[in-house]
Amino acid sequence: MKSIRIFTPATVANLSCGFDVLGCCLDTVGDEMLISLTSEPGIRITKIEGADLPMETDKNVAGVAVQALLLDYKKDLGVTIEIYKKIKAGSGIGSSAASSAGAVWAVNHLLGNPYTPQELVKFAMEGEKLASGNAHADNVAPALLGGFTLVRSYNPLDVIKLHSPKDLVMTVIHPQIEVKTSDSRSVIKHNVSLQQAIHQWGNVGGLVAGLFTEDYNLIGRSLEDVIIEPLRSILIPEFKNVKNAAIEKGALGCGISGSGPSIFALSKGLKIATDVAEAIRVVYAKTGLEFDIHISQINSNGVKIIEEIQ
Amino acid sequence: MKSIRIFTPATVANLSCGFDVLGCCLDTVGDEMLISLTSEPGIRITKIEGADLPMETDKNVAGVAVQALLLDYKKDLGVTIEIYKKIKAGSGIGSSAASSAGAVWAVNHLLGNPYTPQELVKFAMEGEKLASGNAHADNVAPALLGGFTLVRSYNPLDVIKLHSPKDLVMTVIHPQIEVKTSDSRSVIKHNVSLQQAIHQWGNVGGLVAGLFTEDYNLIGRSLEDVIIEPLRSILIPEFKNVKNAAIEKGALGCGISGSGPSIFALSKGLKIATDVAEAIRVVYAKTGLEFDIHISQINSNGVKIIEEIQ
Repeated sequence: MKSIRIFTPATVANLSCGFDVLGCCLDTVGDEMLISLTSEPGIRITKIEGADLPMETDKNVAGVAVQALLLDYKKDLGVTIEIYKKIKAGSGIGSSAASSAGAVWAVNHLLGNPYTPQELVKFAMEGEKLASGNAHADNVAPALLGGFTLVRSYNPLDVIKLHSPKDLVMTVIHPQIEVKTSDSRSVIKHNVSLQQAIHQWGNVGGLVAGLFTEDYNLIGRSLEDVIIEPLRSILIPEFKNVKNAAIEKGALGCGISGSGPSIFALSKGLKIATDVAEAIRVVYAKTGLEFDIHISQINSNGVKIIEEIQ
Repeated sequence: MKSIRIFTPATVANLSCGFDVLGCCLDTVGDEMLISLTSEPGIRITKIEGADLPMETDKNVAGVAVQALLLDYKKDLGVTIEIYKKIKAGSGIGSSAASSAGAVWAVNHLLGNPYTPQELVKFAMEGEKLASGNAHADNVAPALLGGFTLVRSYNPLDVIKLHSPKDLVMTVIHPQIEVKTSDSRSVIKHNVSLQQAIHQWGNVGGLVAGLFTEDYNLIGRSLEDVIIEPLRSILIPEFKNVKNAAIEKGALGCGISGSGPSIFALSKGLKIATDVAEAIRVVYAKTGLEFDIHISQINSNGVKIIEEIQ
């Protein structure tokens, strides 16, 4: 039996302008998983700590993602999965993606890497489909590839790794409220004005250009969402005050992480990211709501090995 | 009296996915202009060859653009402008933009460059406003900055120069038909589906990433327009056949240049671009319509000095 213990990261999807296409990978926020190849065929979830999640393989995002991989790999292998959740479910920083991506990454590693990280995305997306009904890739892609990623196209699937400037630091606040996925979806309109769409794709181009040229100012100017944020932010208490506080402290930009309720702020350097964390802590302390705050550099590798056990 | 003779380039705006925001600068297609600073205050168009355009300063795009510059510069200077048009009006490869951009670039040069190329964009946009009623920047920006440019935002104006991979070559066919601006606008819808918009901004991100990484294949995959091209291409005879012929010959992508009727194809290397030209020539030869075909490398500098006269 070969086993591997991994760190599988939290991720911030959308990044303001890049709804459904952009995402980035965090470094110090994530789950641990212990994945083993066994002689007995079948996929078994043998342990889950830190969250109340289904142990049945076909109801668990990690189980479903590994099923998709093995179906493609066409060998009747045995896999056991232990999950040590640290990312809270429903936080908006890719909790289900961390499990799906981590599981397929680890199995691929144990098999001698028959798939590229890009190829693993489609397997991990099956976990996302189970979690949210929608096989989106904007969290699993950065978890698997690391750094900043772009889902250029879903059909055919085309995932691009972007450049990750080294001084970028994320501050994330997770207000511990439940935002129902149905509510978070129902506020979004099916149609947008062409003018707003043009504005948005100008910013997507600007953000990608800013990442490649390490132009922090351009990155900041491009972190603007004229389509989704005005609608979804009403579901997040104190969103505007958090954003104002973050920008005032020098954050390059601030927006909704994924579908929320977490809010991210991207800063140049740890000092500003820490000041931002303190300022938004002050804003949220007044609400009486529980919340977590994370500060993390960008993880340019994605899933990491903690220990290999032969 | 100081004079400067310049080459001012044609440009291809939109580049499929980047409606209203992306553009690139051609190298061997463009106008010439002779611009002089004179002792007698006022802006005078003294000669126009190659086109039937207004000589009155405030009815001529070059005159209006220079007016905007001098208004900002706050000195009562004298400028004379001679225009030698080679780009046909209404072709969709930035004929008015070449005149506006060339004029302000030359005056700025004669004044010792008080403005950056980025700052000149807003003056040249006044010429575009006169020409089409809409102060768009996606032709004047690449004419002034060279290479590939992104208009990240119109308000405030934020123009970014992108990287220009050296092997890219444009083939442009200009069918000599008149497409009324009003028709070309009326086919565009004011609203788009969010799904299409997401598809489009995925491609904008992919194209920008492809340019910076010189990933020609990614550039090709990203040259896709799911919003405007399906509507506007009906106004361009043989559009689909031209596109199919170009792609078959190995072009990375093919689409409408600006608002048409010109069609561009972007290829890797002169050989493919020349094959593409021949293939689309065959398509158009059957129509009985008159047409021009241009082949040009990307001009990474924009407006160029031909001669300085002291």
